[in-house]
Amino acid sequence: MAKDKPSIPKGTRDFLPGEMVKRNYIFDTIRNVFLRFGFMPIETPAMEQISTLTGKYGEEGDRLLFRILNSGNYLAGVSDDEIIKRDINKLKASLSDKGLRYDLTVPFARFVVQHLNEITFPFKRYQIQPVWRADKPQKGRYREFFQCDIDVIGSNSLLNEVEQIQIIDEIFKNLNMKIVIRINNRKILGGIAEVIGETEKITQITIAIDKLDKVGVHKVNEELAVKGVSERAIRELQPILSLSGTAEEKLNELEKKILPGSKIGRKGVSEMKSLFSYLEPLELEADPILDLTLARGLDYYTGVIIEANSTEMKMGSLCGGGRYDDLTGIFGLNDVSGVGVSFGADRIYDVMEKNGKFPEDTMLTTTLMFVNFGEKEEKFCLPLLDVIRKSGIRAELFPDKVKIKKQMNYANQKNVGYVALVGEDEIKNGVITLKNMKTGGQEQITLDELIEKLL
Amino acid sequence: MAKDKPSIPKGTRDFLPGEMVKRNYIFDTIRNVFLRFGFMPIETPAMEQISTLTGKYGEEGDRLLFRILNSGNYLAGVSDDEIIKRDINKLKASLSDKGLRYDLTVPFARFVVQHLNEITFPFKRYQIQPVWRADKPQKGRYREFFQCDIDVIGSNSLLNEVEQIQIIDEIFKNLNMKIVIRINNRKILGGIAEVIGETEKITQITIAIDKLDKVGVHKVNEELAVKGVSERAIRELQPILSLSGTAEEKLNELEKKILPGSKIGRKGVSEMKSLFSYLEPLELEADPILDLTLARGLDYYTGVIIEANSTEMKMGSLCGGGRYDDLTGIFGLNDVSGVGVSFGADRIYDVMEKNGKFPEDTMLTTTLMFVNFGEKEEKFCLPLLDVIRKSGIRAELFPDKVKIKKQMNYANQKNVGYVALVGEDEIKNGVITLKNMKTGGQEQITLDELIEKLL
Repeated sequence: MAKDKPSIPKGTRDFLPGEMVKRNYIFDTIRNVFLRFGFMPIETPAMEQISTLTGKYGEEGDRLLFRILNSGNYLAGVSDDEIIKRDINKLKASLSDKGLRYDLTVPFARFVVQHLNEITFPFKRYQIQPVWRADKPQKGRYREFFQCDIDVIGSNSLLNEVEQIQIIDEIFKNLNMKIVIRINNRKILGGIAEVIGETEKITQITIAIDKLDKVGVHKVNEELAVKGVSERAIRELQPILSLSGTAEEKLNELEKKILPGSKIGRKGVSEMKSLFSYLEPLELEADPILDLTLARGLDYYTGVIIEANSTEMKMGSLCGGGRYDDLTGIFGLNDVSGVGVSFGADRIYDVMEKNGKFPEDTMLTTTLMFVNFGEKEEKFCLPLLDVIRKSGIRAELFPDKVKIKKQMNYANQKNVGYVALVGEDEIKNGVITLKNMKTGGQEQITLDELIEKLL
Repeated sequence: MAKDKPSIPKGTRDFLPGEMVKRNYIFDTIRNVFLRFGFMPIETPAMEQISTLTGKYGEEGDRLLFRILNSGNYLAGVSDDEIIKRDINKLKASLSDKGLRYDLTVPFARFVVQHLNEITFPFKRYQIQPVWRADKPQKGRYREFFQCDIDVIGSNSLLNEVEQIQIIDEIFKNLNMKIVIRINNRKILGGIAEVIGETEKITQITIAIDKLDKVGVHKVNEELAVKGVSERAIRELQPILSLSGTAEEKLNELEKKILPGSKIGRKGVSEMKSLFSYLEPLELEADPILDLTLARGLDYYTGVIIEANSTEMKMGSLCGGGRYDDLTGIFGLNDVSGVGVSFGADRIYDVMEKNGKFPEDTMLTTTLMFVNFGEKEEKFCLPLLDVIRKSGIRAELFPDKVKIKKQMNYANQKNVGYVALVGEDEIKNGVITLKNMKTGGQEQITLDELIEKLL
């Protein structure tokens, strides 16, 4: 080749057919469960106004937004003084007024406010689309990746939380993955902050606790101290976070011994008791556990928070979400409560791949390939193929008359299930020689028999 | 609301559930046909290296690329002199080294060259993804729109063209749309240019002829003259373009009277004769016609070209494509022949919508909604819902105990098929009151009967 091999931007990926088939298996499974629970699809554009995106994901998030260069002479309005300074942050406003979607939550909030008169509340939507972040690429972290989100907006009922926990359970059961579902409540965390005398530090406490899994208790306590949480408060926090027993036992302990002095804390306990009373009779595959150390970093959560992790492989959460009381407030629509969960398709893929969880027939591509013996046979086979395809079977005719070995090699590489050989003899006798590519077995059958066999 | 209503960038769209359901019906139909013909999915990233994209779509195309602003201090390496000049085209290189996908063809060519050792030839891929163009937005033209492409690469066989014409026919038949499939051959157009003495003007002739449908013969001849095609050549071109009769008659006329002096022209005629001999026995719904005025603007086509148009509504082509002998050459891999067709989902949507082609059950969202009568009934209904959903029926329980009128209104707005009422009496008698939302009819049935009825 004369030129350099072409490449794609770092942190992005091409998906080959073998990967696509598996990815679609995940997306289809997730989508089917979403639909069975009454969630409806929406999509939003890849680009949003930059004003929709900035200020929503913290300083770090703003830095990680991919911005679209404006068309036209975008530097015309900038003065010489300003341009010579090369103050990127100032120039950005002239250079770019659009950015790529950073998650599906903020675009959804924008969507709800923009289409307020076109949707019916409670609005149950799912959304499966890629998002983009200019993060430093590393193993398992990409600059383009897919999120699968559900949200219900406009209903305060805990039934929505129940339903989303059922959805999580159902999806991973259908994917044949073993998980643990951990739930907690921001109101309980708020109550704890209150009783240890650090109400104003609730955000810092949540962010620190959220790292407990990754960094351990020592580092969390260090961070709490750095953030100005008092030594006494940190000491008082420890036994609370390490409460043991069933959900009921923990909730009773919180109610009677720890949180009687906090109104918000008691509300959280009452919500969790109610939630568990709905969940108990439901015979979920993965029984949800109450995990008081679950915090979730995002600060818009206000009630129940949920996360699911693989029990077959050490890895970050496979999905997570919770209740937020004012997500659309950022776009001027206040007091609309919602609850949502986001599934990370890439992590789910990695766990399934590493643990051999993809069913074998997912990997089948074309079911049947006709070998090409030349023009006369081609013209005989085309109408047969037509009938076979109309019955719903995936079938193709190798397009070139090349050596059979080459054609069989193609069928093997493509993981084709069966190969049909129709030469002069078969045409004369009105039969098809069918070869099972897995067993190597061969038989002569009629068209009808072939269709019945392959359906 | 305190703030301005949020908006999205001009030329982009949100898709509401009602639209998504219809769009997914189109995508699913197209995808199913692609799969039945042995095409496999791939996906490429939204962003490509800017060098992959520039110079591939002409000057106009380069101008319409959406570019991604680089991260970091992208103006650090630019001298004061350069920056003061504000020469946007020069600064672009520092500002941006990535761009958004402009079509699916160039990324596919890049993909094939980059993954040469991972794919099996002939490589049959489909790709359904959005593309972005900074075109002036107008009715029916968007800055983000979806393409559905198939390509076979690495096979010279005309069977590929046959197959793609079958695919076009099958897709529109499945969508219940009436179309005409027009085919032509670039080699014939080349032969015509040769015999009228304008071989070097073949590109200009093709571009001009391509507009015949839109602007009429007078404007086309004007353009040909402006582009320097001789008066004599233009005169000689007219009877050729207006040849009438069956494909066979036209091809015979071309072969015997018009193109005997052109080798490439005769090759084109021979290809078309062969193509029609494959197509004739196939009983297509939309019989393909030979249209010598079909040219297709893109200059990488080298053989058969194909387009399909609605016969129910005046509108640009719904799909189009053709044979190209050297698409991957731009990335250094020469002499790999391919053929592909691209379907425009947005235009297909518009035709289907205007002509009421979407089947009614496509618009059904949730099949069954349980009315919420309060906590006791909720807890009774949840396990029923579980069984119903596991049988594959889409079902939900209204999450809040509000007035029944409000709940029924939600069911109506969401186009729910049936509503289940389970109150105290039903719980006592072990039955469900089922209301058909379309007929208004109501009956009391058991859970098993309900599932059987709704499946």
